[in-house]
Amino acid sequence: MTEYRLTPLAQSLPATVPFVGPETQERNMGRQFDARLGANENVFGPSPHAIKAMAEAGHWMYGDPESHDLRQALATHHGTTPDHIIVGEGIDGLLGYVVRLFVEQGDAVVTSDGAYPTFNYHVAGFGGGLHKVPYKDDHEDPAALFAKAAEVDAKLVYLANPDNPMGSWHKGEDIAAALERLPARSLLVLDEAYVETAPEGTALPLAWGDPRVIRMRTFSKAYGMAGARVGYAIAAPELITAFHKVRNHFGMNRAAQAGAVAALADQAWLAVVKDRIAQARIQIAQIGRDNGLMPLPSATNFVTLDCGSDAAFAKAILDGLVARGIFVRMPFVAPQNRCIRVSCGTNADHAAFAAALPAAIAAAKKG
Amino acid sequence: MTEYRLTPLAQSLPATVPFVGPETQERNMGRQFDARLGANENVFGPSPHAIKAMAEAGHWMYGDPESHDLRQALATHHGTTPDHIIVGEGIDGLLGYVVRLFVEQGDAVVTSDGAYPTFNYHVAGFGGGLHKVPYKDDHEDPAALFAKAAEVDAKLVYLANPDNPMGSWHKGEDIAAALERLPARSLLVLDEAYVETAPEGTALPLAWGDPRVIRMRTFSKAYGMAGARVGYAIAAPELITAFHKVRNHFGMNRAAQAGAVAALADQAWLAVVKDRIAQARIQIAQIGRDNGLMPLPSATNFVTLDCGSDAAFAKAILDGLVARGIFVRMPFVAPQNRCIRVSCGTNADHAAFAAALPAAIAAAKKG
Repeated sequence: MTEYRLTPLAQSLPATVPFVGPETQERNMGRQFDARLGANENVFGPSPHAIKAMAEAGHWMYGDPESHDLRQALATHHGTTPDHIIVGEGIDGLLGYVVRLFVEQGDAVVTSDGAYPTFNYHVAGFGGGLHKVPYKDDHEDPAALFAKAAEVDAKLVYLANPDNPMGSWHKGEDIAAALERLPARSLLVLDEAYVETAPEGTALPLAWGDPRVIRMRTFSKAYGMAGARVGYAIAAPELITAFHKVRNHFGMNRAAQAGAVAALADQAWLAVVKDRIAQARIQIAQIGRDNGLMPLPSATNFVTLDCGSDAAFAKAILDGLVARGIFVRMPFVAPQNRCIRVSCGTNADHAAFAAALPAAIAAAKKG
Repeated sequence: MTEYRLTPLAQSLPATVPFVGPETQERNMGRQFDARLGANENVFGPSPHAIKAMAEAGHWMYGDPESHDLRQALATHHGTTPDHIIVGEGIDGLLGYVVRLFVEQGDAVVTSDGAYPTFNYHVAGFGGGLHKVPYKDDHEDPAALFAKAAEVDAKLVYLANPDNPMGSWHKGEDIAAALERLPARSLLVLDEAYVETAPEGTALPLAWGDPRVIRMRTFSKAYGMAGARVGYAIAAPELITAFHKVRNHFGMNRAAQAGAVAALADQAWLAVVKDRIAQARIQIAQIGRDNGLMPLPSATNFVTLDCGSDAAFAKAILDGLVARGIFVRMPFVAPQNRCIRVSCGTNADHAAFAAALPAAIAAAKKG
């Protein structure tokens, strides 16, 4: 075996995946899942106009490296200008870029213990030092995050609103008020991936007024296009410009660009999907209650169910569900890992979940 | 304006784009190009089966982070195993990953002066020091590249075969022979993006036998799927594993994965496209000759035309073509920049090119 001269940092990194995909689990099990409720995908899918636009895209041409039409449409939608917007290969891709721009070995970064692991993966990947604060009553805790940022002189602070994996949320005005405590030289990475399914007033009202905030949005959730890989960020133009120094300029799929433009234009479809998601949350919550699990309030396209005991019990229920063909996931960190997390599905998905859950719980109780 | 705390490296980087997209040029001109012959796209497009597969993909689901089915199909196609293969967001994305894995500030990297600028962009982006050797008779020069690698203790050496922007190529066996001079601890990044359109025997015959070589391939050229963003690399499993430490695991577009599987399975379509490309090369060469430009031999889906003078003259012809609605590009570096580069198009594209070229040359001669 050749000894490859990886950088010391690369050598030190584990070759681990933040999430194991459902397809991997299916291959390992030798069967397909009956219900795919683990990745917070949106089974109601994209606007028919978006599907059509993607099918009709000229696949032979590279995408526009400026994502001009999409940035223009997003700017109009959000009441800003395109120089405030960067489009990238999903929020995951954009998180990688922002971490790369800010973090080198030893730089401090703050997040919540149990928040999005892919952000942590990027921070580790560039040698940053992660400082974590606990959730507070199943909510991320902006005051604690910003206090920790001051304490460790954090370059970046990550906050998801609404939160994944708990589904909880803060009012945008409360986050705006908490920003007074954000250190002047820290950048808040505000992940609003789920904001379209949240109550009015959840999005940060400051909009792009505060240059210390970069907001992440996506077409993967409410817009139903997870497979297309279209995320975007909204920030001050000076910060947006920095992305051009490191991004994969021709990295965007051309059909996905066209699909996102069409999806954004079809707000009527988005309204239909939001209604279906709201109905699905009620169904999942009821299935949980019927089986003695306590649903947490959700502003997202999933419902987190408190299994009422410890991580081992929740994991046993999760394993029982997976063994019965129901793909779900669960939080990674205590005390949130007393829960399982169930994405909104179709009525058929929920019926399959409801059919499998009693036996999964019974088996978990036997131990 | 806030002073963002970018890393010193990020601060030092220019916010420049390796290539300006044709859409940007069109927006600046206020008109569409009549012929899109500048980005070495494949106007004949993907297999109809690939188009169908992309249209029917479940856009609401994330792609398989392992690209399992595609890696399996590629392994079978190349007579290897999937652990030798990594799939990524185009060769551009994979080049970014390999540079990130190997290069930190001050590390030496070797390439040809005038070779692929996006590779150089990635090297600069991670702080590497680029050492360049000249082309030799419009060919990249493996012996000189490997000698330079020994001299500067290069971690990476970049070589494209066939070459872009000159369209020239080496026999695979000649590159294999030259590998004797590659330093034991240098990694050769062999970009074979255009190999499907090259004569038999152009691909490196050593295949994955030499762990000092990583080969890059793509669905963007002969397979006609530039918009889909599917590249792959073939290397020793120990090296492939390292990619999992840094890549965007859920970065692949799900439809693109399915499309690539279908495209690979349709080798009959590939044969049709290769034939059309061969015919197109003959047409472009003839148009060049008819106008006093000397076509260089090409193993790619483009023809480089020697304009017979200096860079200023070639640039004037290029500008004249662009002004007349013909999108073409040219090499960046002397003496290759005495040429313009014309991608294979349809008969209509070539007719538009042939119609515009005499006036573009005449205007260039006037100065």
